[in-house]
Amino acid sequence: MKRIGVMLCAAAVAAGALLSAPASAQFAKPEDAIKYRKAALTLLGAHAGRIGAVVKGERPFNAAEVQASAAVMETVSGLPWEAFVAGTDKGETRAKPEIWKDADKFKGAGESMQKAVAALSAASKAGNLDQVKAAFGEVGKTCKACHDNFRKD
Amino acid sequence: MKRIGVMLCAAAVAAGALLSAPASAQFAKPEDAIKYRKAALTLLGAHAGRIGAVVKGERPFNAAEVQASAAVMETVSGLPWEAFVAGTDKGETRAKPEIWKDADKFKGAGESMQKAVAALSAASKAGNLDQVKAAFGEVGKTCKACHDNFRKD
Repeated sequence: MKRIGVMLCAAAVAAGALLSAPASAQFAKPEDAIKYRKAALTLLGAHAGRIGAVVKGERPFNAAEVQASAAVMETVSGLPWEAFVAGTDKGETRAKPEIWKDADKFKGAGESMQKAVAALSAASKAGNLDQVKAAFGEVGKTCKACHDNFRKD
Repeated sequence: MKRIGVMLCAAAVAAGALLSAPASAQFAKPEDAIKYRKAALTLLGAHAGRIGAVVKGERPFNAAEVQASAAVMETVSGLPWEAFVAGTDKGETRAKPEIWKDADKFKGAGESMQKAVAALSAASKAGNLDQVKAAFGEVGKTCKACHDNFRKD
């Protein structure tokens, strides 16, 4: 079901950059930052799940719907990263310490995801399922890579 | 602080339409729908909070930042409504029964908010703080109206 894409991406949590200065300025409390990044990743995962269901043939291909979901993904894919501020490794989060210990790798993983999602969004505009499938496969790889390295089970 | 806009909009939850058919098809379980709409409203509220802080003079006016936040708001403002499906009045939600009892009013409230947010997004592109203030004030009214009527305290 769409669930699978959700599982894949729902916590692409990891990938990304820690925009420290402007970041912390945006969140009054650590839990606000955690809630914010989880919200962005929830939407990312939900819409990945919708496209994933189409890719797997569980839902009919509706080009407009896929395009809309990919556009949402593109918007929210840029949001989580500034919320991985210092002090947000505790609490209601599955973020691994590696996010802060290996910040460059995490930043790179986030950028890879954003790039793949942008490519999916671009591909979705052609209205061609094969193009969507190919681009979605690349997105899935970036989700998985980040979850494997930066998200607790 | 930015908190105030967050409080204002964070659960603009209410406003909106219940796109029943395609809606329920998107969510495997009621809690998925609740989580989804809360995620969208969390981002909506967070970015409203950022603009609100600028409007109140608590943060310096950076036109690009305000524009970016307004764009996020515009994207996510359309998302919550399909997730107010039947059976999602229980659980981890502050949704009032009126959402389903007075569905037309709720739909209208959601549409008013989306319209006000679209106007804010358009206004933000001019890079003029007074225009942002005026448009943001209209958004705030739609947040409050919906919270008053459709969100539990």
